[in-house]
Amino acid sequence: MILSFKPSVAQQKDMMIRIAEIEIIPEYLEEYKAILKEESSASVKIEPGVIVIFPMYQKENPNQIRLLEIYANREAYEAHLKTPHFQHYKSTTLKMVKSLKLIEMSAIDPETMQEIFRKIK
Amino acid sequence: MILSFKPSVAQQKDMMIRIAEIEIIPEYLEEYKAILKEESSASVKIEPGVIVIFPMYQKENPNQIRLLEIYANREAYEAHLKTPHFQHYKSTTLKMVKSLKLIEMSAIDPETMQEIFRKIK
Repeated sequence: MILSFKPSVAQQKDMMIRIAEIEIIPEYLEEYKAILKEESSASVKIEPGVIVIFPMYQKENPNQIRLLEIYANREAYEAHLKTPHFQHYKSTTLKMVKSLKLIEMSAIDPETMQEIFRKIK
Repeated sequence: MILSFKPSVAQQKDMMIRIAEIEIIPEYLEEYKAILKEESSASVKIEPGVIVIFPMYQKENPNQIRLLEIYANREAYEAHLKTPHFQHYKSTTLKMVKSLKLIEMSAIDPETMQEIFRKIK
């Protein structure tokens, strides 16, 4: 089930936007990416309030993972933390993570966000 | 004119994904954000090969700007650099930028990217 989410500019004010900066212990990298992939995919598919979890790694330093995360609001994020797929991700990857920084962001241009949503539909 | 872009997983292999880390000299911050907003908005609207330019700032350190940029391919990016709106952005903001890091990224899960595109439509 894919739940559609096309937020208005007003709704975007409630959104929680974050960049996660995660460094993985090299020996666990492939395993970590497989678990992360499963978790982010499930979150986007199942949770209507998870708008974007977009996992990437730095080409020149693949142990450096970056996630762009966008939640509909703080409640959607809190609910996300309680899901079985997030709990599984968190407990299995804890030992693989060398460092973790969660950086709260604000969108500079909510209208362009709308534009992007319209464009990639 | 909004040009729709719904890339297949195959097309996503050509995509250029980048995080720009930009620190702005505080006195120029508001002016910089206004110019950036204009430029990113124009790029997403006018250029079919600019899939995402999503500008953000760190809530706790607003001089720290982050951009998620996704281009259809390397050619789309090269064409973007030659547009009047990018040229205007670059020339007017040069003196405002304290530091600039362009970090090439890879998507960990192209299918979830598809999922996100479908979801926010």
